[in-house]
Amino acid sequence: MKSHTEYLFFQTPKRREFVNITSDCERILHESGIQEGMMLVSAMHITAGVWVNDNESGILEDAMEFLERLAPKADYRHHRTGEDNGDAHLKNLLVHHQVIIPVTGGRLDLGPWQTIFYAEFDGQRRKRVVVKVMGE
Amino acid sequence: MKSHTEYLFFQTPKRREFVNITSDCERILHESGIQEGMMLVSAMHITAGVWVNDNESGILEDAMEFLERLAPKADYRHHRTGEDNGDAHLKNLLVHHQVIIPVTGGRLDLGPWQTIFYAEFDGQRRKRVVVKVMGE
Amino acid sequence: MKSHTEYLFFQTPKRREFVNITSDCERILHESGIQEGMMLVSAMHITAGVWVNDNESGILEDAMEFLERLAPKADYRHHRTGEDNGDAHLKNLLVHHQVIIPVTGGRLDLGPWQTIFYAEFDGQRRKRVVVKVMGE
Repeated sequence: MKSHTEYLFFQTPKRREFVNITSDCERILHESGIQEGMMLVSAMHITAGVWVNDNESGILEDAMEFLERLAPKADYRHHRTGEDNGDAHLKNLLVHHQVIIPVTGGRLDLGPWQTIFYAEFDGQRRKRVVVKVMGE
Repeated sequence: MKSHTEYLFFQTPKRREFVNITSDCERILHESGIQEGMMLVSAMHITAGVWVNDNESGILEDAMEFLERLAPKADYRHHRTGEDNGDAHLKNLLVHHQVIIPVTGGRLDLGPWQTIFYAEFDGQRRKRVVVKVMGE
Repeated sequence: MKSHTEYLFFQTPKRREFVNITSDCERILHESGIQEGMMLVSAMHITAGVWVNDNESGILEDAMEFLERLAPKADYRHHRTGEDNGDAHLKNLLVHHQVIIPVTGGRLDLGPWQTIFYAEFDGQRRKRVVVKVMGE
């Protein structure tokens, strides 16, 4: 069994943003040399997520608006700590912070429209994602 | 380390539907010969999900109604592309497209009521799920 | 490839509760002797979840209130079976029942604030979580 771990760093210009990381994941898989296995793509922060969906700008705007509707900026208990990002923790709850991509025949075994997005809900600061491939 | 990959195909009669795929997953595990490891069950489309819950018809109807309440059919930006399934992308966001089932002693290590469902939100067309088992 | 499986048992005093299980997961990793791999932490019940977020009491209260707002106690179809926990199944849908923790250099590869919580939505009864580590 082989494993290979890399970290992706982000400092998004906007507070909320989807960043397409599919080609980063493909590069990491290539560097790992793994042909069969699984790749974990997991945000290391609690105000971000990872989502697999279509790279269509309308969907990404719809999704961000949807998350804002369900988990709006508001006055949360968390703000008693001095933070103002309570909504970002709830958006993380909805989107989740990780996905697993199957690796088959040396390739990310994604459907034709599946794109891997880092989902930032409290950006403009340095954030990190761990990408770990395990297999043979 | 061994790995084994199969694809399940769906073309649901209804646009939205939960399909119990537990016995498919058990069959694939048996074919893999893997005794200890993990099985990834992951939708390859961006308008479907995979959910583990109870095989009780009331729950499945409650869940579909709940998803329709949170992510209703509406006029989404995505529809500027000619599609009409914007809601299905948001339902995917809530349900997520994958689960991992632990494999212990040659069996899917599920709780007594845990059932694996393919969750279709834009059916009546051909869709695919990848099932990948990794272990020994 | 090595694998190691343990079960955590819960009987929470309250019906809804977040329980920090990070140190349990660290202990299980230590017992496994695995240095590189992945740990699956997965609820075996359909009215519970696993969430990775910050161990800050305000966030945990915000999250429980948020889940109650989106998936409130109400009269669900599931209650025709005699159960009264329909809301807990929908909260499970939102939070999800599992996470994967990367294992790097013999440690859980978590970000500085990431804490692993068992999320109980129908407690005061015996529940179980499977923790499975796979790697080398």
